[in-house]
Amino acid sequence: MLKSRIKYRVIYGDTDNMGYAYNANYLRWFEMGRGEMFRNLGLTYKTIEEKGYFMPLSEVQCKFLFPAKYDDILVIETTLDATFKGGMRFTYRVLDEEEKTVLASGISKHAFVNKDRKIVRPPGFVVDVIKKGLAGI
Amino acid sequence: MLKSRIKYRVIYGDTDNMGYAYNANYLRWFEMGRGEMFRNLGLTYKTIEEKGYFMPLSEVQCKFLFPAKYDDILVIETTLDATFKGGMRFTYRVLDEEEKTVLASGISKHAFVNKDRKIVRPPGFVVDVIKKGLAGI
Amino acid sequence: MLKSRIKYRVIYGDTDNMGYAYNANYLRWFEMGRGEMFRNLGLTYKTIEEKGYFMPLSEVQCKFLFPAKYDDILVIETTLDATFKGGMRFTYRVLDEEEKTVLASGISKHAFVNKDRKIVRPPGFVVDVIKKGLAGI
Amino acid sequence: MLKSRIKYRVIYGDTDNMGYAYNANYLRWFEMGRGEMFRNLGLTYKTIEEKGYFMPLSEVQCKFLFPAKYDDILVIETTLDATFKGGMRFTYRVLDEEEKTVLASGISKHAFVNKDRKIVRPPGFVVDVIKKGLAGI
Repeated sequence: MLKSRIKYRVIYGDTDNMGYAYNANYLRWFEMGRGEMFRNLGLTYKTIEEKGYFMPLSEVQCKFLFPAKYDDILVIETTLDATFKGGMRFTYRVLDEEEKTVLASGISKHAFVNKDRKIVRPPGFVVDVIKKGLAGI
Repeated sequence: MLKSRIKYRVIYGDTDNMGYAYNANYLRWFEMGRGEMFRNLGLTYKTIEEKGYFMPLSEVQCKFLFPAKYDDILVIETTLDATFKGGMRFTYRVLDEEEKTVLASGISKHAFVNKDRKIVRPPGFVVDVIKKGLAGI
Repeated sequence: MLKSRIKYRVIYGDTDNMGYAYNANYLRWFEMGRGEMFRNLGLTYKTIEEKGYFMPLSEVQCKFLFPAKYDDILVIETTLDATFKGGMRFTYRVLDEEEKTVLASGISKHAFVNKDRKIVRPPGFVVDVIKKGLAGI
Repeated sequence: MLKSRIKYRVIYGDTDNMGYAYNANYLRWFEMGRGEMFRNLGLTYKTIEEKGYFMPLSEVQCKFLFPAKYDDILVIETTLDATFKGGMRFTYRVLDEEEKTVLASGISKHAFVNKDRKIVRPPGFVVDVIKKGLAGI
């Protein structure tokens, strides 16, 4: 429920002069991961925005353990940290296709802001969805 | 007046597995080029948006002649096609730092849309600025 | 055989200030499209590189008809132009998920270069695969 | 000596649906920052690669305090952590043009690898340049 998996195939545009996927792309993959996480919860980030909320990153961390390379199929595993208060916190693992090797791991923290870009408490409809996810409903 | 130059240094994140700057980046550089073109005309694209207009691309073309590589300083030369009606058309040349070799050339066409994303005629304040640019004022 | 389809969901990182997918991303999607085209032919671009060949773009064109937006699922349809000589030429259509609306269309042309980055004729193993594709084998 | 500044103007391609610069771009700006840091030391990262070394990221962190927006001129301040052993560690601050507000701060850690992509100790010519930088030579 509070864990999701999504696949992504590394394109040429992701690679760099060294033959590795460039570091900034992992933050795009983290985004793919948490987008899928929301969908698993029965909510899309698009819906959150349509209801007048945004979730900008307040912090991101990534550890790079093994390089991802061109044409690799990656598995991005995202876990919602249900203990985190005041916003949302996700943990990520980027794995190889066989899910044997962790290529990278990381976290992101997000605040909720309203249409005026003021920080607000997590809206009720998001809290409810998480509670249901935790309860396995 | 209707021609501008701006420099950009290729970063690692622009490069690819082949050791060349990846093709999609040229469209970012074209954007840098026309942003500078607007500034040369005494107008910024930001101002155009603040006045309620957007200029999405309707078409882009790029010919790649010689590769740009990591740490290369590029000169992006942009020319406004003053003969184009109904929107804006720019031509671009991406040159090496010494401006001896054309690495790539291209064009982009843009429509004007208003806040409702409806296509509109070029707004008067943009037309005026171009006329002044043509007149060398 | 010489036509392929692949899906891609627009992420937040693809969007821009206007709420549309930024133009440069279409070139990344064209790459996804032709990567899938190669896989359909029983060949991967990775294999082409492993055999010592690269296929840099010599030209790209894109017409933008309707905007792609955040969370849209796109269908990228790629067709190999079997009449093109001396390299490879692909045509692309980016469609909405229902494949009712063409959001963008374009072409790309590619040269073959060897490890020394010298332009060479299309290697036999690529020509063979295309011939088989054309013959419907 | 062990601190550098470089400017970057946010382009439309950096922005997102929310009107902010997308998070992954900060990692590109960190790269611009450390590239300038190396140049200040009298060394370019390109030279390091030409001598057979690469410096992939092993870790990156970024805190986002205030959003960067379209057309903002950013100042990326990079400091080399001279106390870090076994690789290199940089700290970054992304400031507004007037350098009054810190928009983001972060760190990156890098290993040295050789042409075979094996982790090695920092090469002597890099260590020397840092020592000279520290000594203010």
